[in-house]
Amino acid sequence: MRTQVVIIGGGPSGLLLGQLLHRRGIEAVVLERKTREYVLGRIRAGVLETGLVGLMEEAGVAERLHRDGFVHDGTRIAAGGEMFHIDFRALTGTPVIVYGQTEVTRDLYDAREAVGARTEFEVDHVLIHDAESDRPYVTFEQNGQQKRIDCDFIAGCDGSHGVSRQSIPLTIRREYEKTYPFGWLGVLSHTPPVDDELIYANSERGFALCSMRNRNLSRYYVQCALSDHPEDWTDAAFWQELKRRLPREVAERLVTGPTIEKSIAPLRSFVTEPMRWGRLFLCGDAAHIVPPTGAKGLNTAASDVHYLYNGLRQYYEEADSEGIDRYSERALARVWKAERFSWWFSGLLHRYPDQSPFDLKMQQADLAFLRDNQAQQRAFAENYVGLPY
Amino acid sequence: MRTQVVIIGGGPSGLLLGQLLHRRGIEAVVLERKTREYVLGRIRAGVLETGLVGLMEEAGVAERLHRDGFVHDGTRIAAGGEMFHIDFRALTGTPVIVYGQTEVTRDLYDAREAVGARTEFEVDHVLIHDAESDRPYVTFEQNGQQKRIDCDFIAGCDGSHGVSRQSIPLTIRREYEKTYPFGWLGVLSHTPPVDDELIYANSERGFALCSMRNRNLSRYYVQCALSDHPEDWTDAAFWQELKRRLPREVAERLVTGPTIEKSIAPLRSFVTEPMRWGRLFLCGDAAHIVPPTGAKGLNTAASDVHYLYNGLRQYYEEADSEGIDRYSERALARVWKAERFSWWFSGLLHRYPDQSPFDLKMQQADLAFLRDNQAQQRAFAENYVGLPY
Repeated sequence: MRTQVVIIGGGPSGLLLGQLLHRRGIEAVVLERKTREYVLGRIRAGVLETGLVGLMEEAGVAERLHRDGFVHDGTRIAAGGEMFHIDFRALTGTPVIVYGQTEVTRDLYDAREAVGARTEFEVDHVLIHDAESDRPYVTFEQNGQQKRIDCDFIAGCDGSHGVSRQSIPLTIRREYEKTYPFGWLGVLSHTPPVDDELIYANSERGFALCSMRNRNLSRYYVQCALSDHPEDWTDAAFWQELKRRLPREVAERLVTGPTIEKSIAPLRSFVTEPMRWGRLFLCGDAAHIVPPTGAKGLNTAASDVHYLYNGLRQYYEEADSEGIDRYSERALARVWKAERFSWWFSGLLHRYPDQSPFDLKMQQADLAFLRDNQAQQRAFAENYVGLPY
Repeated sequence: MRTQVVIIGGGPSGLLLGQLLHRRGIEAVVLERKTREYVLGRIRAGVLETGLVGLMEEAGVAERLHRDGFVHDGTRIAAGGEMFHIDFRALTGTPVIVYGQTEVTRDLYDAREAVGARTEFEVDHVLIHDAESDRPYVTFEQNGQQKRIDCDFIAGCDGSHGVSRQSIPLTIRREYEKTYPFGWLGVLSHTPPVDDELIYANSERGFALCSMRNRNLSRYYVQCALSDHPEDWTDAAFWQELKRRLPREVAERLVTGPTIEKSIAPLRSFVTEPMRWGRLFLCGDAAHIVPPTGAKGLNTAASDVHYLYNGLRQYYEEADSEGIDRYSERALARVWKAERFSWWFSGLLHRYPDQSPFDLKMQQADLAFLRDNQAQQRAFAENYVGLPY
């Protein structure tokens, strides 16, 4: 069989790319290793930048997002028992929308099915062939059968452990990584969120984040040791620790309850260069990982999709390869800015085991400068709502 | 003998404080360990913030500064072979003035002599007594004689190695320090400066700075190993290394010549808290050191002088101790912001031995964000020209 673009990976970036291409009459097949139900079972945060919202609109899948998403005009930052507000709308004219990544994925699957676009689930042993030629193809196993799809281009949207990045020879690939000496313990609970905006907290006991899914579903996180296990943390211990890391007036109005999910995630910064190898293009987690502080993961995947979609559109509609030729350079320029912001914002809020008293003072001074200086707040807000594509 | 304020240290901060107090009819005696000639022999950079210029005006010693100083409306930052400009005046409405610290000190000594205010030179074994009482006094030796001055207040302007900070008991003092794993090799040469503004350069061979004293006196620096000695560096080696760290078009127009001074300075961040102990107030280097990147040393000393001068004025003119009671808190709030800026700007421009490839990418991303983002440029410019007192 043959198609124009093979998209490896049926997560949000692959699906968004597929839907955008479909609306332009460019045919794509999505290959997903798991089932749709499995993919939709992954719980992921969702703070959507304007750029991603615009892509969802362009893909015709923004209706539910606009109906059910929560518009956040700013965010709160707590430190040293105090809290200050950063007003995105006043500083940038733009809010963010809180809408679960799982919901984004569901909307994209629903749209994909509605238009009858092809998705192959439960594919295994995906291999990329002849990516450096004009006639690349992908082979895989499905239901015990060996299959092959010939194509013009391959979009590697298969995440950090997928085959796409691994297919780029090590002689070409350069990888950059930072691991953080702590994790995030996150819980989900059927309780009303403690605030109508996100609260990022730097406390002497470590970082905490108050987030939400909807009016009766809260998502809270505390920085924890990488050696911790979720089962070590009773609900009571979690709520107590969270309260101790929040300003008193926030802790006092926190509504606690049984947790319905508890998990620990490590924090990691990772980028691979280049993001293009011949006719293979990496998108999203396949090329880069950010620590979750600042919620740039899905949004940075979306900016890749933006550049790749426009490059492919230019190629098919205008017979011009400029967009795909410059894909890696353009995508990476924005990726590194998002990596910078996520790394800096992580550094601003967490306690590090090797922090000296001077380092702690620099962290406090960084927070004070952000609290007091309007230009710094604007630079922060522009990053948070998303730098222009 | 008796005076109102004993100022320990006849460097620029002590002299500026003395002059400001004199203009208000508050009597101060300055004690200086060395001779006037010795003090004026110290070569120090001079990039003056608006706040310091305002204090010099208020002290009546700004005439020569305005006549001979160079107004710099911006600065240049070079990285990766490119260079960009940050326009202080457009971003903040304010320039900086390049005018040597030695000249500032000279103007202040001239003014001090003109008004006949007392300065005791070549004093030794200075000791601070009863700083926690209402009747503090200072003893010292001069020409083999033991002397004593009773006073209301003591201003400790005697630098990092002076007696003032050491007089605060260790049970009260908290000190914060960071040392940097490199130094600055600086040269002075009778050559026209390569540019009309300062050029800060991040190169893969390390930091470089092109600065100037006047139209035919240039001051250049390169990051070097702490183990280097000035005599290891021939003039030819210095010029060659400097050129390799500058963008080609800058290197090509660099005029070289014999160097007339060559020295290596370590880089250090240091703050002591509190800055007040009873009737002793620390000012400038006695309380804090910044790495020279961003030229905040003299300017931060000036902000201390501003707070202390106004506190003393309020005390003597309005019989209100609010200003001196809040001196430490107010001075330190601004000190930490200057420390943050100097630390961050140092980190932006130098090569560190333990920098990982990811760290280097973060440095490049920081530079790219500063180059591309107007809010970040404004935050930078506001720091560079000086945050408000």
